[in-house]
Amino acid sequence: MRAVDLIVKKREGGSLTREEIEFLIAGYVRGEVPDYQMASWAMAVFFRGMSFEETGFLTRAMIGSGEAIDLTGVSGPLVDKHSTGGVGDKVSLILAPLAASCGCVVPMMSGRALGHTGGTLDKLESIPGYRTDLSVERFREVLRRCGFAMTGQSQRIVPADRLLYALRDVTGTVESIPLITASIMSKKFAEGARCFVFDVKCGSGAFMKSQAEARCLAVSLARTGASLGRRIRAVISDMDQPLGRMVGNFLEVRETIECLQGRGPQDLMQLTLRLTAHMLVLGGLERELAAAEALCRERIRDGSAWRVFLDNVEAQGGRTEALLDPGKGPRAPHTLAVRSPTTGYLARLEAYRVGLACGVLGASRARKEDPVWPDVGVELLKAPGDPVREGEELCLLHARDPARLEEARRLLEAAVTVGSERPPPRRLVLEEIDSDALGKD
Amino acid sequence: MRAVDLIVKKREGGSLTREEIEFLIAGYVRGEVPDYQMASWAMAVFFRGMSFEETGFLTRAMIGSGEAIDLTGVSGPLVDKHSTGGVGDKVSLILAPLAASCGCVVPMMSGRALGHTGGTLDKLESIPGYRTDLSVERFREVLRRCGFAMTGQSQRIVPADRLLYALRDVTGTVESIPLITASIMSKKFAEGARCFVFDVKCGSGAFMKSQAEARCLAVSLARTGASLGRRIRAVISDMDQPLGRMVGNFLEVRETIECLQGRGPQDLMQLTLRLTAHMLVLGGLERELAAAEALCRERIRDGSAWRVFLDNVEAQGGRTEALLDPGKGPRAPHTLAVRSPTTGYLARLEAYRVGLACGVLGASRARKEDPVWPDVGVELLKAPGDPVREGEELCLLHARDPARLEEARRLLEAAVTVGSERPPPRRLVLEEIDSDALGKD
Repeated sequence: MRAVDLIVKKREGGSLTREEIEFLIAGYVRGEVPDYQMASWAMAVFFRGMSFEETGFLTRAMIGSGEAIDLTGVSGPLVDKHSTGGVGDKVSLILAPLAASCGCVVPMMSGRALGHTGGTLDKLESIPGYRTDLSVERFREVLRRCGFAMTGQSQRIVPADRLLYALRDVTGTVESIPLITASIMSKKFAEGARCFVFDVKCGSGAFMKSQAEARCLAVSLARTGASLGRRIRAVISDMDQPLGRMVGNFLEVRETIECLQGRGPQDLMQLTLRLTAHMLVLGGLERELAAAEALCRERIRDGSAWRVFLDNVEAQGGRTEALLDPGKGPRAPHTLAVRSPTTGYLARLEAYRVGLACGVLGASRARKEDPVWPDVGVELLKAPGDPVREGEELCLLHARDPARLEEARRLLEAAVTVGSERPPPRRLVLEEIDSDALGKD
Repeated sequence: MRAVDLIVKKREGGSLTREEIEFLIAGYVRGEVPDYQMASWAMAVFFRGMSFEETGFLTRAMIGSGEAIDLTGVSGPLVDKHSTGGVGDKVSLILAPLAASCGCVVPMMSGRALGHTGGTLDKLESIPGYRTDLSVERFREVLRRCGFAMTGQSQRIVPADRLLYALRDVTGTVESIPLITASIMSKKFAEGARCFVFDVKCGSGAFMKSQAEARCLAVSLARTGASLGRRIRAVISDMDQPLGRMVGNFLEVRETIECLQGRGPQDLMQLTLRLTAHMLVLGGLERELAAAEALCRERIRDGSAWRVFLDNVEAQGGRTEALLDPGKGPRAPHTLAVRSPTTGYLARLEAYRVGLACGVLGASRARKEDPVWPDVGVELLKAPGDPVREGEELCLLHARDPARLEEARRLLEAAVTVGSERPPPRRLVLEEIDSDALGKD
């Protein structure tokens, strides 16, 4: 088998076999298939696509390039959730303890903040002492004790994805649905869960700008997952505006606490409950979404979700004082208010620019090696639909470096639209896709 | 400017500017744009194509990557011919002295035999002592003295093409008309000629299998050349069967001698005279093709083309004894006849397999580093259309290593079709394209 022949086969619109895809991926990881062949293959995939079956082969070959976490011996329904990333998206922090408090076992591997989007690991690490570099042994222990565990991806998990993603990033081959699908799924499947809920976001703050693109990815995730024998639900949700009121690492932890204590904002709670309910149904704990949502509400009301969260923070080395009294947690020394330019209704708050502003303040990274600060970010004081007066505070910027406030303020001002009419209420959950309800490839 | 943005621009169907293409090519040659980015760009070009203007920018950027030969001070119309390669194609060896004897100045840089196709340099080097590694100074001297000079491409001419071609070869991006166009034209333009005749071959023994593909390349060559201010004629010629009766290095030199002495086979002479006539018209030496062909015939008849050839061989270090008495030239020690399986007419002699058989015998290379032998090859005793009897000799294999004869014979037997009816006469010149008669991009 020669890589160049497989490139030409894909270029001419052919489907690669399982053996052919394994040859490419295993060879790439071993350094036998060079970057330039993978790059031209990826561009051919961009133009020709891949069948769901091929995408499944690719996913499996990528998982096989490294170690998968073995969760044999962990009892309970292993279910996880993955989001394609957005602004203010702290759903994982709320959903994981909530699902665990309902009986799910949630082995969650997450990523870091990059560009305009936040990262679950950075949010967790803003809790003083919290460790996200668990050994596999420790990951299993925490999972057994708390029902959920949160960790970063070790170097040994899916090395093919790390290599391929870095290559795609510089060769103009990021925007390929099958390559995105295999990248997401290989990492998720390697962590040991059996069923998955995907939160595919669309809008200005998301990777997929349109609902149609998001639907392509959602269907690809569901069908490819099904071709690998996993049950998948995908929810397409709106990310045109930030989720919740807080954007920034510890700011989002503070909002997480409010949600787990039953005081969370309506939009964030709506999406979190829906996604958690899908996990409960997939895990076989409830048959109907409505009953599952009701169980989730009860677990928040009776305080068990909050207790599971505290238990996890303790198990992963975090200091719970910062959670029991968030005033003791990280707090940035400088703040600046962004005010409404006119009187009317807050019509839109463009998520992308809000995310960029948080990046400017230091809540995310422009490049992988940049540091991230726990305390900076944007606190939204008004939500879209709220009436506002001219000069009224719309949001508060939290900064460590006051020199960055000006640029962040300009971005926020550009993100805000104030109109004379109240905008229609925001629809957050746009579509729901179930792998069981889709046909085969 | 970032290479990845240019890749994405091409991927999305955009046209790159002159500056953008120069950034890519100059950066690639300097090692600043890595192989993997050029590979994904080349694949994007495969799918999206390039305008003739873009192809011109690419050609110019590639020429600019190295040194171009300066022929200022060489007087006379500088005209050259290039063939896309075939089996038994010794046209350059006859055409160059013929055009020179008519008044053209022909600065010819040629390539080597690879795969099933022969190479002009290997044919010339089969003349004992002949040197094809001329310095630029010596190239100019020979050109002034003989009216034509033959040399290989120095390392300093169009380094971008050497790098890019090697990369395309292993990344499935060879079959792209604009990339092929720029590769051919950059090398030709760098050698200093002003007008060009391209012999674009099609059929089993050619790179382009169909006439439609050959037409695409011919039009691309003509239009891209025009966008760079050069006058171009492209002739599409048949390469489904070998050209002439000899295939192999010194065997083809022997046939060249026959042609220059007025005893050449009809097919080979027809194509050579037509291509040379186009050169004379492009060079302004004749206005009409018919008159140009008549002048060529006269230069063969009066022996001047033959004398120019001898003069060049002497100037480039070759021993003319081997030409004046070809029996003194290289001759392989072993021969084997391939005989007709039945009685009828020789209907077809598939060029591709004949070329492969010559490669097996050692007249060409499987890999660049393989040696090439001057004396081996295939001598065709019958031409398509000839009546043949069962068991009659169709061709003679010339071998240095008798162990290779068997495989070559099997290839020849598979190349031959003997039918019961006389095939229609072969049309050699299929189409002629003139850059002056084509519209702009």
